[in-house]
Amino acid sequence: MIIVPETEIAGLVTPADCFRAVEGVFASMADKSAHNFPVVREAIGHADALYGFKSGFDRKGLALGLKAGGFWPNNVHKGLTNHQSTVFLFDPDTGKCRAVVGGNLLTALRTAAASAISIKYLARKDAKVLGMIGAGHQATFQLRAALAQRPFERIVGWNLHPDMLSRLEEVAKEEGLPFEAVDLDRLGAEADVIISITSSFAPMLKASQVRAGTHLACMGTDTKGKQEVEAEILAAAAVFTDEVAQAVTIGESQHAIERGLIREEAIVEIGAVINGTHPGRTSADQITLFDGTGVGLQDLAVASAAVELALAKGVAIEVDF
Amino acid sequence: MIIVPETEIAGLVTPADCFRAVEGVFASMADKSAHNFPVVREAIGHADALYGFKSGFDRKGLALGLKAGGFWPNNVHKGLTNHQSTVFLFDPDTGKCRAVVGGNLLTALRTAAASAISIKYLARKDAKVLGMIGAGHQATFQLRAALAQRPFERIVGWNLHPDMLSRLEEVAKEEGLPFEAVDLDRLGAEADVIISITSSFAPMLKASQVRAGTHLACMGTDTKGKQEVEAEILAAAAVFTDEVAQAVTIGESQHAIERGLIREEAIVEIGAVINGTHPGRTSADQITLFDGTGVGLQDLAVASAAVELALAKGVAIEVDF
Repeated sequence: MIIVPETEIAGLVTPADCFRAVEGVFASMADKSAHNFPVVREAIGHADALYGFKSGFDRKGLALGLKAGGFWPNNVHKGLTNHQSTVFLFDPDTGKCRAVVGGNLLTALRTAAASAISIKYLARKDAKVLGMIGAGHQATFQLRAALAQRPFERIVGWNLHPDMLSRLEEVAKEEGLPFEAVDLDRLGAEADVIISITSSFAPMLKASQVRAGTHLACMGTDTKGKQEVEAEILAAAAVFTDEVAQAVTIGESQHAIERGLIREEAIVEIGAVINGTHPGRTSADQITLFDGTGVGLQDLAVASAAVELALAKGVAIEVDF
Repeated sequence: MIIVPETEIAGLVTPADCFRAVEGVFASMADKSAHNFPVVREAIGHADALYGFKSGFDRKGLALGLKAGGFWPNNVHKGLTNHQSTVFLFDPDTGKCRAVVGGNLLTALRTAAASAISIKYLARKDAKVLGMIGAGHQATFQLRAALAQRPFERIVGWNLHPDMLSRLEEVAKEEGLPFEAVDLDRLGAEADVIISITSSFAPMLKASQVRAGTHLACMGTDTKGKQEVEAEILAAAAVFTDEVAQAVTIGESQHAIERGLIREEAIVEIGAVINGTHPGRTSADQITLFDGTGVGLQDLAVASAAVELALAKGVAIEVDF
């Protein structure tokens, strides 16, 4: 059994590695050679924790397993991150546990890869201004990954607590790009691509604030009841997602579906665009929206990449199990 | 993170350790301080494998985690057991992965512990003859664990393929007890306690073959469609189980429930008998039946015991994770 500790991940896996791994498995999901298993998610009644599993099997990549872990809100007082996860990979030929991989940084990277993939395939080629809604820890990952996909010239950002925007400003500075804190009217009016990555339970961005041609990647909604943008935006947009089943139940699409503004059949899995079986954006004026819910196969794909890199670089711990 | 490899389990954990661990967690299930999470079980479309997870949390024992693995029917050609499983334990205070434990032998031991617990709490004190239906690998575990619960004087056994009964005969010989291969008429007429542990999809034991006062532990039915004994036996018996939700859907009880022969509300969790909140057997003539379906909390309980023993004996592998 191979162990890749959390502390090794940063030195092993690049955002580009994760981009390739997630792009590949999104494509496999769309051509039905990979599928996610039902998600288990439980409030355990201890330490206010949410615990569960995301799992699946990619027959093409031969990745079988799960990510286990969850949200421990009191970890912050212990010097630990609140989100804790571990990925377990199994040998699909024998059922033996093949690898145990630290999943905290990988989760951040695979989530960032998803919105970056949506920008690659759906944003206008001439996109110049990137708008960020949300400025938490994860937002910096989304920002970095996005900047690799288009020659963005500047970044505008909004956050409920504006002081946190300094995080995004630092990343922008590192990348040599100007950053400006703006209100949502200006953000919608100026951004060609908008990434939302918040824990909001009420829509922040209004339909009237979004102009034609915009690409939105809504990455924060992963639970029933959460919502980042007005459902009317989805009604006006071509809607894409990682997995339709999750989008309509726990994703940003849940609200537009509930209100009958969009039909489930009209939501397209981004993998179909990667595979070339769906054209993606069909006009410069179209609004495209990617509803990123986060699937277990993303975790398995990036953890598999981490294992291969750890083996190649000789940092994998091998245990006779 | 602590690793306890499969190869260490046999030297660490006794049937008695597993008995105590499973008895404790059955009690916790009945008093609602432990609960199992939804089971994930998938035919993965590769190697004819069934893969999935059984998981849960025991607030009293602070065991959180899952058993992952499944059934790989072609493993036998590779010198591996067909059932492969690994138990992952998490720290309920932080969500960090605490231990990875080989789950193959533990699964056999925890399944054997369940029928032994049912014998301890439900069989007549004067039980003398043990009847075994099924003679596969698992049957030897059930037999050994059962023998510790009553002063059995002899063993009778039946199997679809009688040549396999030599396995049980060997165990009987080791324990200094006579063994006889019998038909099901004689088995029912002579046995005070009957354990069935098969993969049957049709009832083998008939109601007319079971006499008053018998205790049955039906351990083989863990899937929709499987069945070991006629549903009329459950109608005539006081029915106990590890978990009611599993008993009525994938356990031996599913058929009696479907046919309206018993009510879900009448099935008693064995933990209530352990806790003393249910009397268990109420007369010498009563037929008692334990429907053992196998729950994730059993796996967590025995794996937790294995980790403690491995630490105490200095054979746990500790990895900085």
